[in-house]
Amino acid sequence: MSLTPGPEVASRNVRLIVHYDGSGFAGFQIQPRARTVQGELERAVSALTGSRVRIIGAGRTDAGVHARGQVVNFRLPGAVPIGRVQDALNRGLPPDIAVLDVAEAPPEFHARFDAISRIYEYTILNCDVRDVLQSRYVWHIRSKLDVPLMRQASELFLGTHDFSAFGVAEKGRSPLRDLMTLEVRSDNGRVCIVCQANAFLQHMARGTVGALVDVGTGRKRVDSIAAALERPTESEEFTIAPPMGLCLTRVEYLS
Amino acid sequence: MSLTPGPEVASRNVRLIVHYDGSGFAGFQIQPRARTVQGELERAVSALTGSRVRIIGAGRTDAGVHARGQVVNFRLPGAVPIGRVQDALNRGLPPDIAVLDVAEAPPEFHARFDAISRIYEYTILNCDVRDVLQSRYVWHIRSKLDVPLMRQASELFLGTHDFSAFGVAEKGRSPLRDLMTLEVRSDNGRVCIVCQANAFLQHMARGTVGALVDVGTGRKRVDSIAAALERPTESEEFTIAPPMGLCLTRVEYLS
Repeated sequence: MSLTPGPEVASRNVRLIVHYDGSGFAGFQIQPRARTVQGELERAVSALTGSRVRIIGAGRTDAGVHARGQVVNFRLPGAVPIGRVQDALNRGLPPDIAVLDVAEAPPEFHARFDAISRIYEYTILNCDVRDVLQSRYVWHIRSKLDVPLMRQASELFLGTHDFSAFGVAEKGRSPLRDLMTLEVRSDNGRVCIVCQANAFLQHMARGTVGALVDVGTGRKRVDSIAAALERPTESEEFTIAPPMGLCLTRVEYLS
Repeated sequence: MSLTPGPEVASRNVRLIVHYDGSGFAGFQIQPRARTVQGELERAVSALTGSRVRIIGAGRTDAGVHARGQVVNFRLPGAVPIGRVQDALNRGLPPDIAVLDVAEAPPEFHARFDAISRIYEYTILNCDVRDVLQSRYVWHIRSKLDVPLMRQASELFLGTHDFSAFGVAEKGRSPLRDLMTLEVRSDNGRVCIVCQANAFLQHMARGTVGALVDVGTGRKRVDSIAAALERPTESEEFTIAPPMGLCLTRVEYLS
């Protein structure tokens, strides 16, 4: 495969699907003096292209949150064949990040602004004894959760609300988000919460799960969630679920 | 629950089922200046009983090897109610060890000498791209394994053989072991090898898996395994599978 095609090959917009184990990262978004997913991706892509490349990510996951379906895009200089990208990046990336798919995207594609929804899954292990082989990926809760009551509470979240009782809005930006799915599945001591919204405030996925758990343990009443969605500024304080149980599983686009 | 029963309560022999994530341990067996499973268990049990207690383990797993069914036993002083043991140990143990079951055993029960077989499972991820959320628990092999050929090779191991081409015998002890099961399961890019023997030489489970992988990748011929079992001293060298894919899943006893 030639590495030096003619100068007529323009740069392309490339879309990746990225998995990572969030345990060792200070989150997705690049920060000085911290290990971040974006930082590692930019380092690997820049090493491949020989020039500094900026990565755009669909979801800015918190420190410790995992991903099985993060979407990012960047400009790939014409000199690099697209067929080489996946293998080269996977060799250049640390073992806790992997590129699962590479595709050329339309020139105007923007991983963050074009996303119409993000889907997160949160896993709770609800049993007496911790599972030592899963502890990096689940929240272990010993007291038995009232799953039917959590399901009842989950319905209150559906639709468009001011979510600032459950997450942090950026200064001067709208705290409204449209939550399309909030499903509480329970199977053999595992409770899995699937949460889909057009976009999430900072910590909002963890805040939503934390509030459902507050209901499931009896710490909060279902009413208090309804009240927090109606009058966020007067809201009671809900638990924020710890990051290790959360995973960004999919990002949806129109096309 | 009384913590001070009468002096008539004698010490009991207690059997535990223990899980651990081997990633952070220099193996099961206690060693000076190293973090070991036995060391952590003895520390936690001694803290509970107030006296130095020795733990006996069924399988001395290598550094990095996990367990979902390690069996250990120890003498519990009469002053400690058996109903308190599991919870107290799980609070006292680090997050990468957990006690799943506690039972009183006959006075003569010995976790190591009474075991009639040990069952290990080895997990290989056989696909192009690593799975970042499982990398601590699987061996990632990119080149496609020939599973039918591995199954053919696995049959050669069955029965009683001198296994010293695949493991290290203790000095002056027999290298003979009886291998009862060696099953190669393949499902959707995962290859799982289940291995049951009366007992294992040091590294033998990993050596057996490594040899099967050598056959599966075409690095070795099936014949070379037959030869190594017949004439171990003249054996070719086989791969030793890395520890993170291996898990001690069960130990069997007569009663």
